[in-house]
Amino acid sequence: MMVEKLRGVFAPLCTPFDSEENLDLKALASNMERYAKSGLHGYLALGSNGENKSLLTDEKFQVLDVILKGRAKDQAVIAGCIAESTRETLQIAQRAQDMGCDFIALLPPNYFKKQMTDDALLRYFTDVADRLAIPCLLYNAPGFAGGLALSEKLIQKAATHPNILGMKDSSTGNIEGFLLAAPEGFAVMAGSLNNFLSGLLGGAYGGVLSLANAFPALTVALYNLFTGKDYEAFFALNRRLLSLNRAISGKGGVASVKAAMDFAGFAGGIPRRPLLPLTDGERQALFAVLAREGMGP
Amino acid sequence: MMVEKLRGVFAPLCTPFDSEENLDLKALASNMERYAKSGLHGYLALGSNGENKSLLTDEKFQVLDVILKGRAKDQAVIAGCIAESTRETLQIAQRAQDMGCDFIALLPPNYFKKQMTDDALLRYFTDVADRLAIPCLLYNAPGFAGGLALSEKLIQKAATHPNILGMKDSSTGNIEGFLLAAPEGFAVMAGSLNNFLSGLLGGAYGGVLSLANAFPALTVALYNLFTGKDYEAFFALNRRLLSLNRAISGKGGVASVKAAMDFAGFAGGIPRRPLLPLTDGERQALFAVLAREGMGP
Amino acid sequence: MMVEKLRGVFAPLCTPFDSEENLDLKALASNMERYAKSGLHGYLALGSNGENKSLLTDEKFQVLDVILKGRAKDQAVIAGCIAESTRETLQIAQRAQDMGCDFIALLPPNYFKKQMTDDALLRYFTDVADRLAIPCLLYNAPGFAGGLALSEKLIQKAATHPNILGMKDSSTGNIEGFLLAAPEGFAVMAGSLNNFLSGLLGGAYGGVLSLANAFPALTVALYNLFTGKDYEAFFALNRRLLSLNRAISGKGGVASVKAAMDFAGFAGGIPRRPLLPLTDGERQALFAVLAREGMGP
Amino acid sequence: MMVEKLRGVFAPLCTPFDSEENLDLKALASNMERYAKSGLHGYLALGSNGENKSLLTDEKFQVLDVILKGRAKDQAVIAGCIAESTRETLQIAQRAQDMGCDFIALLPPNYFKKQMTDDALLRYFTDVADRLAIPCLLYNAPGFAGGLALSEKLIQKAATHPNILGMKDSSTGNIEGFLLAAPEGFAVMAGSLNNFLSGLLGGAYGGVLSLANAFPALTVALYNLFTGKDYEAFFALNRRLLSLNRAISGKGGVASVKAAMDFAGFAGGIPRRPLLPLTDGERQALFAVLAREGMGP
Repeated sequence: MMVEKLRGVFAPLCTPFDSEENLDLKALASNMERYAKSGLHGYLALGSNGENKSLLTDEKFQVLDVILKGRAKDQAVIAGCIAESTRETLQIAQRAQDMGCDFIALLPPNYFKKQMTDDALLRYFTDVADRLAIPCLLYNAPGFAGGLALSEKLIQKAATHPNILGMKDSSTGNIEGFLLAAPEGFAVMAGSLNNFLSGLLGGAYGGVLSLANAFPALTVALYNLFTGKDYEAFFALNRRLLSLNRAISGKGGVASVKAAMDFAGFAGGIPRRPLLPLTDGERQALFAVLAREGMGP
Repeated sequence: MMVEKLRGVFAPLCTPFDSEENLDLKALASNMERYAKSGLHGYLALGSNGENKSLLTDEKFQVLDVILKGRAKDQAVIAGCIAESTRETLQIAQRAQDMGCDFIALLPPNYFKKQMTDDALLRYFTDVADRLAIPCLLYNAPGFAGGLALSEKLIQKAATHPNILGMKDSSTGNIEGFLLAAPEGFAVMAGSLNNFLSGLLGGAYGGVLSLANAFPALTVALYNLFTGKDYEAFFALNRRLLSLNRAISGKGGVASVKAAMDFAGFAGGIPRRPLLPLTDGERQALFAVLAREGMGP
Repeated sequence: MMVEKLRGVFAPLCTPFDSEENLDLKALASNMERYAKSGLHGYLALGSNGENKSLLTDEKFQVLDVILKGRAKDQAVIAGCIAESTRETLQIAQRAQDMGCDFIALLPPNYFKKQMTDDALLRYFTDVADRLAIPCLLYNAPGFAGGLALSEKLIQKAATHPNILGMKDSSTGNIEGFLLAAPEGFAVMAGSLNNFLSGLLGGAYGGVLSLANAFPALTVALYNLFTGKDYEAFFALNRRLLSLNRAISGKGGVASVKAAMDFAGFAGGIPRRPLLPLTDGERQALFAVLAREGMGP
Repeated sequence: MMVEKLRGVFAPLCTPFDSEENLDLKALASNMERYAKSGLHGYLALGSNGENKSLLTDEKFQVLDVILKGRAKDQAVIAGCIAESTRETLQIAQRAQDMGCDFIALLPPNYFKKQMTDDALLRYFTDVADRLAIPCLLYNAPGFAGGLALSEKLIQKAATHPNILGMKDSSTGNIEGFLLAAPEGFAVMAGSLNNFLSGLLGGAYGGVLSLANAFPALTVALYNLFTGKDYEAFFALNRRLLSLNRAISGKGGVASVKAAMDFAGFAGGIPRRPLLPLTDGERQALFAVLAREGMGP
């Protein structure tokens, strides 16, 4: 069952740049070497943490290529497709499929937010899913989609499409609602550590956790405590990782996730503008927190 | 003075597609022929009405080329630059500059909205304006920018840049605030008929009016009543056009603007998905309103 | 015609408190003496500027009593009714009616915002208007109503009630929409200087202007320039007053309006907590602006 | 330790009305008889479910009196204080204290939302807590407070006050954040079943669950599974109750909670306007769901 590949922890991979903000594919390849041995169950390539929208079209496929070559055999790759027209989405998704990705994640178009009714969105998701051989996941992330949130009704309708197998929920406080609304066998994934615990306890398949970029082993350990039904340890580690996650991505976003990767010995580096890197002070403060928490390479 | 070119009415040009949603450049050229003789003072190319975000990169320049070739000599062209990274924005803007555009309009990046502080945005606008020879306008359109609104303080700071000469305000209800906040000589343009009157009365240079796509002459007439100080007629025509504008773009957005273009004998046609065309019923209702109002080719 | 009483400038009266935050009715009476000779066309008693929600029930009627006794004969009094239940609204409104108020202004209940559908709101407005002999105005003020905005459709439906004669629009950027949506003879009033000009030019009856608390004569002069069709002077004064209004109520709200009243020789004083008075620095900065603009008692 | 009284499940009591929407204190007393034997750990009196804002001032104390007389000895009573001025809040809170309530819950004032900075709110909470002998809880409920959300920083500052002992969080998706931000010993309570599980697992003391109005025993059972560390059963019952809760209060709010009380043999009845009762169809649909789920008196 394809959908079973979505169980576990996925890293929403960051894209390394050099000091001129050019793509640093070698750095990415070197990160992948470590991730391949980390126990991670898969990757979200070209997601928000990957600065998808800051990559030129060609760059997206270069990044994807390195990820696909670097993953371990049993690690699944979801390719993020974040474009505003059905046409462009299809171009990107079809190439990602040809390159060997396992799943496509579709953020809803939102430039014309007022017109993005459930009908228009369903048409969009259907148009794309119809033309792909690999399965699609819906990506609910109001924070990155101009405030556009997928409704439970839309999820229920979309879930009847044979090629829409799941969703990633990066919204706040409603993953249990989606789990109750979705049909049996529709794979709901938590989009953040913030809803990972509630998600898992409510039936989610897994999570896409930005913390996995810097500390993959810890996030995998968290998942294993859950599957091993070692609940008290699961709650305790979850609380510790939540605290860590707040220190990292709470305010700083991608710049901060990349700095934490530097701390942990991965190639993080700077984000591409308009994102600004952490200031020296912010970076030192972050490193101090990570050291205090006993993190390290 | 370059900035004086911004006085008057600008059409935010729509992009015609054929029934397969392919670019129809001939149709665009034919629209331009009429617009060139319409009295319009200029164009916003590749704006929201132009479905900028639904065009592939190459298509943007094909569209721009037709517009630049079709415009009358004294009509200015503002090229909309709507991209998420400084890098991509610069690529597009520099090419638009090389092709002969007069101004660049910059929508703020907003995918990473939380990180788009005034500092980050100022850095973005400065990075772009620094590298261009043609002047930049800031494009304040929260409805198309995920709710991100430019603050008056940001406008004041950006306005000190020698190559940032003005702004287009498509937000709701604050154009008078921007006019009071902006320094003398900074060109504020109304982004919609809804704030055109208040804008002009408060010192705006002109307006970018979607109604100009279907009824250019009427929008030019409105502006001329203002400059001719024929105020009562100005108020009356404004009220009539507001009513018309609500019937057209109120709910339907670009699809409706294009239908009104069809009604008026321009090549409007269908939008590109995810935007859906008007239903037959919506189209007939719109045409009925336009006929009742005495519009026509 | 009752509705004709709504033409002109209304002051949304502030409520003076002493240094212990007790009601200072003498101060209010003394303000009224000056307002009665100011040329103002009427008052909004117990509105937002009057700190309605910070007054105990009995205090509301004490305030109303002073206002009714102090007004000039030809000045109309609108009593603000801001309560969450139909029952309490009716109690207040009926007493205001018995005391001699001319109109009731109804802010929509919004504590249970999710349930306040157009149907529920229409029922509320109807329940109240049915039981009153004096006419009701709807008060659209999303900023004070938890973000709840009255829709144009709701206005159209409510306007068919024989005892709902108008509305006060304190929302942003849509007064022209309400004017187009409302039936002939339905009195739309601008709720702020920000939409007073657009409102008047679009057919509004008048405005409820917080600036009138400190500078009643200037606001009346503005209105007279409009009715006298002295448009250029109207535009110029409007621009000057907008600038003044921003300095006063832009950030500081009621505390700032009251400070401006002090400056102008009215009894302003401090607001009641939770509102905090201006700091000394804010107060001095405000007074400096007012002096620079040539204001004064 | 006073704060230990907050452990467990609290019912946010509904206020019964008769068919004329008059207070039905007998019905309330009869509900209390059953609640007193239900195992519930306490009550939130005069909260949102109690239609606080729809009660006249005197009615509030009549309701409180019945609740205090009807509770079992070991059940704590939190009195909701929802008023817009420090003055009125104090009047209500002091009387609630004199009547014998154990805690006061303070919703932040929000009519003047723009002015309700953290400083103003801290002043408000401090002014009230200073003058009371019984401890205060902060009530974070953006949905009922015009969108005003308490910040983690504000909570941290307020928590240093010796008489502010905890908070009730009815916001969405951040209870784990508050638990991490709050100091040791500050009692965080979940404000809804939606964040009860995450809350408890992260260290919350208990929850205020609207479901307890109709099905007190089930909510107590849920809590007991947690304290008994019977986690799998806890997760399963939580999921079942979440589903039930969505059917009840998801859309219908208080009207629906009251209908569920009718179903369960409590005196629910109709809400007071502006809230409208369920339609017959809605009521039948709700009863059908409840019957299907095996609920009953």
